[in-house]
Amino acid sequence: MRNKIYIVGIGPGREEMMTGEAIRALEDADVIIGYTVYVKLLGERFAQKEMLTTPMRQETERCRLCFEEAAKGKRVALICSGDAGIYGLASLMYEMGKDYPETELEVVAGITAASSGAAVLGAPLNHDFCVISLSDLLTPWEKIERRLIAAAEGDFAIAIYNPSSRKRKDYLMKACDILLRVIEEKRPCGYVENIGREGTRAETCTLKELREAQVNMFTTVFVGNSGSEIINGKLITKRGYQIEQSTDFCGNN
Amino acid sequence: MRNKIYIVGIGPGREEMMTGEAIRALEDADVIIGYTVYVKLLGERFAQKEMLTTPMRQETERCRLCFEEAAKGKRVALICSGDAGIYGLASLMYEMGKDYPETELEVVAGITAASSGAAVLGAPLNHDFCVISLSDLLTPWEKIERRLIAAAEGDFAIAIYNPSSRKRKDYLMKACDILLRVIEEKRPCGYVENIGREGTRAETCTLKELREAQVNMFTTVFVGNSGSEIINGKLITKRGYQIEQSTDFCGNN
Repeated sequence: MRNKIYIVGIGPGREEMMTGEAIRALEDADVIIGYTVYVKLLGERFAQKEMLTTPMRQETERCRLCFEEAAKGKRVALICSGDAGIYGLASLMYEMGKDYPETELEVVAGITAASSGAAVLGAPLNHDFCVISLSDLLTPWEKIERRLIAAAEGDFAIAIYNPSSRKRKDYLMKACDILLRVIEEKRPCGYVENIGREGTRAETCTLKELREAQVNMFTTVFVGNSGSEIINGKLITKRGYQIEQSTDFCGNN
Repeated sequence: MRNKIYIVGIGPGREEMMTGEAIRALEDADVIIGYTVYVKLLGERFAQKEMLTTPMRQETERCRLCFEEAAKGKRVALICSGDAGIYGLASLMYEMGKDYPETELEVVAGITAASSGAAVLGAPLNHDFCVISLSDLLTPWEKIERRLIAAAEGDFAIAIYNPSSRKRKDYLMKACDILLRVIEEKRPCGYVENIGREGTRAETCTLKELREAQVNMFTTVFVGNSGSEIINGKLITKRGYQIEQSTDFCGNN
């Protein structure tokens, strides 16, 4: 039998927002590995499991630890917040997996902040959308800028991850200034802090107001497309239905 | 107490890929409403519930039915495949909700095909990405074309929903031809059919080969970015980690 590592998206962290498949993978594992903060988010159900943690910024070490534990014959679950394949460690695991051909990898999808944050704000991503991270630690800022402009020119709704951190306090302002080259000041926007955790806070605003918003590393930001509206305090990006008459098939309803 | 409607993303359909929160919303409901095919996907657990279905293309009628049932004092759950806020009925519900101020709406996030399909293919969306539907029933084709070009020019990874249907057999080919104006023929791509259901089938290929791929309305298509690679048969979009040395914090690991 091949060694096995599950790469598990745990969503925002509350067990209720994990899928049954993710819970089963954690139950099936002998050892659960993750960033210290996320391992602590797991509830009582997994308290009897062996847990190994590595601090922030030690992503390659964390992945290496997974392969080393699997080589001992243990079933391993690597946990990532949100979805393991969206700004998580799935791709790094596949890259490093070239050195461990005896180890089978399986990604278990989770609820990413674009989905969970959108549900809190209303329906900001209910048409074609982009997801962009403002973190320039692994991506040159020029590339992020190019993507912001492309997203605005394509009239996409946009979900922005990592809008701020201690060292990048003004990045959301910089991003808004770039978007404002293409998008009007009054474009409906919103942001959600601490999605699915204690202290969830959602705000709607205009793009101009978003420029001044207080956000942190636990905030996900949403920018509407040209047809978005604030309806009863919710940010709504429309799909295009004609409400008073029978409508056409939308494919993915 | 206000009337209540949950708008629930059930993911691909298997109960194991639903969140606990989604299951709780369905259990809490007096009546479950949805497109016939999706209601049938729900398992034994909900067999005792009242179920109301409307056929394809009757989205406004389906939403109206939710408000009417809620007005009778029933708790209603409207189910959508994937995530209710991603090409689902969440935004239409908020739009129609203007006429029903006594009814409270709550969106419950689900696993969308971008997440679940990516997990099957490897990690194709592990950096900034776009989600684009090729269905032109509610969106002018010119807008879809503009978004495909913007996505390519921004060097986004791309998830394509609704790549084909009986009346739109050649749409994926048309989309590939548009992408090929900007992207090289050898760009790594992939597609997944029947995600999370019986008969799941995943393929990787080049963008040129994707042009000829046999896809249907149950296929989700993925186009890598300029750094994507096929590794051991998986489509991998890298996050930018240097594997042999200690790395920087990535924000959302």
